[in-house]
Amino acid sequence: MTIKMIENPFAERIQGISPSFIREILKVTSNKDIISFAGGLPNDALFPLKQLKQASQSAFDKNGSTLLQYSNTEGNLELRRWIAQRYQSQNLAISEEDILITNGSQQALDLLGKIFLNKNDGILIENPGYLGALQAFRLYQAKFLPIAIHEQGLDLNELQQILSKNNPKLIYTVPNFQNPTGISYSEENRQAVAKQIAKTDCYLIQDDPYGELRFSGEIKSNFHTLLPQQTILLGSFSKTIAPALRLGWIVAPKAVMKKLIIAKQAADLHTNSFSQYILAQYLADNSFDQHLSRLSAYYGQQKIIMETAIKKYFPEKAKLTNPEGGLFLWCTLEKQVSTLDLFQEAIKQKVAFVPGESFYTGNIQKNTMRLNYSCADKGAIEEGIKRIGNVLRRSNYNGMPLI
Amino acid sequence: MTIKMIENPFAERIQGISPSFIREILKVTSNKDIISFAGGLPNDALFPLKQLKQASQSAFDKNGSTLLQYSNTEGNLELRRWIAQRYQSQNLAISEEDILITNGSQQALDLLGKIFLNKNDGILIENPGYLGALQAFRLYQAKFLPIAIHEQGLDLNELQQILSKNNPKLIYTVPNFQNPTGISYSEENRQAVAKQIAKTDCYLIQDDPYGELRFSGEIKSNFHTLLPQQTILLGSFSKTIAPALRLGWIVAPKAVMKKLIIAKQAADLHTNSFSQYILAQYLADNSFDQHLSRLSAYYGQQKIIMETAIKKYFPEKAKLTNPEGGLFLWCTLEKQVSTLDLFQEAIKQKVAFVPGESFYTGNIQKNTMRLNYSCADKGAIEEGIKRIGNVLRRSNYNGMPLI
Repeated sequence: MTIKMIENPFAERIQGISPSFIREILKVTSNKDIISFAGGLPNDALFPLKQLKQASQSAFDKNGSTLLQYSNTEGNLELRRWIAQRYQSQNLAISEEDILITNGSQQALDLLGKIFLNKNDGILIENPGYLGALQAFRLYQAKFLPIAIHEQGLDLNELQQILSKNNPKLIYTVPNFQNPTGISYSEENRQAVAKQIAKTDCYLIQDDPYGELRFSGEIKSNFHTLLPQQTILLGSFSKTIAPALRLGWIVAPKAVMKKLIIAKQAADLHTNSFSQYILAQYLADNSFDQHLSRLSAYYGQQKIIMETAIKKYFPEKAKLTNPEGGLFLWCTLEKQVSTLDLFQEAIKQKVAFVPGESFYTGNIQKNTMRLNYSCADKGAIEEGIKRIGNVLRRSNYNGMPLI
Repeated sequence: MTIKMIENPFAERIQGISPSFIREILKVTSNKDIISFAGGLPNDALFPLKQLKQASQSAFDKNGSTLLQYSNTEGNLELRRWIAQRYQSQNLAISEEDILITNGSQQALDLLGKIFLNKNDGILIENPGYLGALQAFRLYQAKFLPIAIHEQGLDLNELQQILSKNNPKLIYTVPNFQNPTGISYSEENRQAVAKQIAKTDCYLIQDDPYGELRFSGEIKSNFHTLLPQQTILLGSFSKTIAPALRLGWIVAPKAVMKKLIIAKQAADLHTNSFSQYILAQYLADNSFDQHLSRLSAYYGQQKIIMETAIKKYFPEKAKLTNPEGGLFLWCTLEKQVSTLDLFQEAIKQKVAFVPGESFYTGNIQKNTMRLNYSCADKGAIEEGIKRIGNVLRRSNYNGMPLI
């Protein structure tokens, strides 16, 4: 049989796009004898396994065949009410009609791209920023407008300059424990960002998968309060309960919600309703706050262990962010270090992280790295950091002094 | 607070698209005292509820926290192997690497649109055709090229004419128990369609959600056999096991699969893996064939009951298709009847169906209707058809003689 090859039949939007670099890294690091700080997974020992098993039984008993039938596009009403009530307890004016349940917040990004972005439409992106968002928006051929992120949040000068020259449709933010840096925007930074965005026709996306995983510091204002008519909130149960359920949500103003529902219907009719019933049951039967306290305390300890090891084993000039929650530390090494080269050496020592350059859409800082502390245990964190430190301290790494 | 209205910030692709008409109809018909032939739902009394409850418990016990963690984009390996083996038992050369698990086959349509369709790219569509496909492809601003569908399948003259004038990227087909008509392509028709498509660079999508629900007639060739390098198969567990799981799949040639995986990752990382484990467990522990026999026998009886009632109560000139499986009958009334008007009258008599015109992308036949027989019970089918028949037989319906 001759093989018929159809010459490049694909759409322009997917030309030249390769699988995510992180996906390729994760393939390398799935080997069990590698200590991996590369992923961004929640620690599976903390999943409420027993409680979800119980909730799944109750969901069968309580709902019968309704549990298995087609459901509505917006999502399970009980689950949306629970989410709305949680927002209300944080003084946010959000009701169940403002919420659409999605397949994790990744789908929320895809749907937002679909309803908003024409080719070459501008979107402000944190630099460095979340790879999943870049992947989703890239397929709508958006024009990325990177804005530097500092310890206090977005660079306000860059924001002002870019807004004065462009007319972006969207700004994508992760103001709490950002991926990849772990940084949170300060209260002042949020106020200033909101003030600038209020003058524009831009919608602000606050993606908040880690916001509930705070182990220190104070809760800051939600953009929904600062900029209610222009804010789109994304939430997720992937980091707090279980990623396999693929349950996230979008909170959006009514005109936006109408379009989202059309796009969601065309995308997959509705989110897995079997899992929605089970999660709603779990949330009715258990204390989410108690569960979160346990997660946050654990991740807080892990972060300190990694931080301490880095101070002990990395060159003195290595700089770290100081996250108050979430899953990541961000390390900046001396200018001449390429963490991509470092990664190749570290893998030989059976330890992995994500080189920072993948996260940039402009002004790439090759001397940065993302370190995940949620999954490795205490001993592995110490050992892994020590190994990376040893590579860094070698005087003749790749023919170049590293420190 | 003044309300800030951002003037039409939305992407061109979603301008002027309204929520699906069927969705609106289903809202009207969700009222319990309406006899509805409008939906396309599987009968929930036939769901393997007890077995899925058992499988969900086993999946927890067997997989532990892996059941709840992030998983791979392609989908659960055991589930993909099961699907591949089922194809192999039907003499189709398909392995697990050829399969991507999606959120129902609706997501498969969305992903195919995303990787293939530039604005104004041509796509051949059965006329009348499946609304979900129209919705998905419309958002990629495809140019629909309708081809009439007859009792034997696609109109081969129309196909040839359209292919000679256009260079479509895709042809979308539902060759078994088509939605909305219930028609299956004959063996000869499949051969002839494959022969024509083989001369082009067009990919043929065989969407097959109902193929396993055969209650009479012979199995016909799969396009994967007739046109292996150009066929993309879609499958779904929504009609055979349970729609709430949102589990479907795509079988595609390797070059297409690569792009699909990039698009799937950007769309939602991966399909709900919790449900995939549970379904794989169910399929390991139960006989799918036995379950299917039960479904098919039931739907076959329902179809006969509806057909018999239509012959009894509808005007003599009403024409029916003769499905060998699936969930739908398609009825063509006399030329002057508008089933949209009929729908308004039928709703007053508390009975619903879908007016045929929603399904057309060209050459609209306003005198057609889709009748679903899977959900209503025997008495309700008889009563509902009788009520529609009564409306049809009124001499002065809407000022116009109907028959």
